[in-house]
Amino acid sequence: MKKSLFITGTNRGMGLGLVKELLKNTSIGTLIAGARNLENAQQELRKISDPRLHFVEIDVQKEETIKDAFLKVFIEDIVGSSGLDILFNNAGVLIPVSVETEIDRDAARLNFDVNAIGTLSVIQNFKPLLDKAVVKNGSAQIVNISSILASMQKTFGSFGDRHFTGYAMSKAAVNMLTRCLSIDWKDQGIRVTTISPGWVQTTMGGEGATTTVDESASGLATFVMKLGEEHNGKYFNFDSAPIEW
Amino acid sequence: MKKSLFITGTNRGMGLGLVKELLKNTSIGTLIAGARNLENAQQELRKISDPRLHFVEIDVQKEETIKDAFLKVFIEDIVGSSGLDILFNNAGVLIPVSVETEIDRDAARLNFDVNAIGTLSVIQNFKPLLDKAVVKNGSAQIVNISSILASMQKTFGSFGDRHFTGYAMSKAAVNMLTRCLSIDWKDQGIRVTTISPGWVQTTMGGEGATTTVDESASGLATFVMKLGEEHNGKYFNFDSAPIEW
Ligand SMILES: NC(=O)c1ccc[n+]([C@@H]2O[C@H](COP(=O)([O-])OP(=O)(O)OC[C@H]3O[C@@H](n4cnc5c(N)ncnc54)[C@H](OP(=O)(O)O)[C@@H]3O)[C@@H](O)[C@H]2O)c1
Ligand SMILES: NC(=O)c1ccc[n+]([C@@H]2O[C@H](COP(=O)([O-])OP(=O)(O)OC[C@H]3O[C@@H](n4cnc5c(N)ncnc54)[C@H](OP(=O)(O)O)[C@@H]3O)[C@@H](O)[C@H]2O)c1
Repeated sequence: MKKSLFITGTNRGMGLGLVKELLKNTSIGTLIAGARNLENAQQELRKISDPRLHFVEIDVQKEETIKDAFLKVFIEDIVGSSGLDILFNNAGVLIPVSVETEIDRDAARLNFDVNAIGTLSVIQNFKPLLDKAVVKNGSAQIVNISSILASMQKTFGSFGDRHFTGYAMSKAAVNMLTRCLSIDWKDQGIRVTTISPGWVQTTMGGEGATTTVDESASGLATFVMKLGEEHNGKYFNFDSAPIEW
Repeated sequence: MKKSLFITGTNRGMGLGLVKELLKNTSIGTLIAGARNLENAQQELRKISDPRLHFVEIDVQKEETIKDAFLKVFIEDIVGSSGLDILFNNAGVLIPVSVETEIDRDAARLNFDVNAIGTLSVIQNFKPLLDKAVVKNGSAQIVNISSILASMQKTFGSFGDRHFTGYAMSKAAVNMLTRCLSIDWKDQGIRVTTISPGWVQTTMGGEGATTTVDESASGLATFVMKLGEEHNGKYFNFDSAPIEW
């Protein structure tokens, strides 16, 4: 059976790579690509022509746009009453927070607001569509993009002048969101899994990143389509290797 | 050698219990009790008369009060050039965030702003005093109060109508802060440890809490005075049993 998938932050970086990879999979029936500003999206995204692909504007910091996106996906019959099989939270920011100089509380807040609270709100708003997929297919899947920096055991601190601490804190919060919902919604058939994309060659990944967007997106796209009950509430690398919390 | 300790959120609950317990320990030379509003502090706190005890106003959401508290502790010679041996971040809030109804982003933000960013800012501001203690005694210790709910492995979701998710996310962020600083500052002699007080009979603990304030505070006060290199970057229960991340 064909699956429907909604993914945020697709105008560039990993999100764009994921759209391209996911469209290669013939079991995807509907792919909804979210971006906070479609006009500024890379031409590469806008040029993709596939009847399964739909665009929706969504800024995960802005409640109205999240609600509008939900209504568009639901009411305008992109997925309608069949619901959404996979909700893929990819949008994210890395705002440096230095513990060596005065704390910029707004910078620290932004990491939480986009990565943690944004993901929480998208999930809460789209839940009715996941519920519909459960009724139809028995289950639905949420994927939260985390980071290796969110692993308490693997994290590596501020990493010098990259000042990762505030970001790592926000991604640990995302992992906890995954854990909480995987417990709360287990009996409702909604699964939640958190995945690190690796250190990827995007604007965020910056210099030194070891994995190409294509590699990471290809691994992730394959893995995401195979997620099952055994992955609920767990944490993996893009190549499906488990990561310790 | 006598130790100096600064603790936040002491006007009631665990903080008040900790002040009483810590004063029983004769190796404490100076105890600085922070509270965001001393006038509203429980009489019990204000009535304690001990030459080692000093009061300082500090609201961990307000940068000016954090800076004023630092200046008071430092310049007004409460600890002066001997520095601070132990910085104990106890202040915290539990703001319910329900994933079953529309997300109140301000409520979600408040958990992060007090528990995670507040702790981060207090640490950053008081670091110069920790550095002085390192020069004098070879090491200094930061204690962050976390929760069993911050454990990815032990957390138990929203816990019905207590709506713990937002709080658990913020305390996971505190654990990550502990991890990052324990790596960043290891070579500087500053240790960071995260401790769960148990489920304690305070306003926050609410109905059903299993541990009295005296029990938890007594365990914690004993444990905190014994923390060493082997506890750096780790996570414990108030009775010193390790907790899995
Ligand atoms: N690259 C890595 O090494 C790496 C490692 C670990 C985890 N990750 C995670 O992977 C995900 C994708 O990152 P990336 O490497 O592709 O980063 P990127 O190149 O910086 O792209 C970030 C994407 O998120 C979008 N975004 C940011 N804030 C948003 C908001 N408020 N609403 C909607 N979209 C928003 C951006 O849109 P705009 O163009 O509008 O800003 C962009 O599409 C993120 O969650 C990131 O934390 C990346
Ligand atoms: N009770 C439990 O079962 C439990 C379990 C796990 C962890 N904890 C943690 O233990 C710590 C103490 O909690 P508790 O049980 O004693 O809770 P509580 O009775 O609600 O007391 C909270 C304390 O934190 C202070 N506080 C809150 N916001 C503050 C701010 N912005 N600036 C400065 N102080 C602030 C409060 O001061 P005001 O009076 O001014 O509000 C109060 O002194 C918290 O970090 C909590 O998360 C408690």
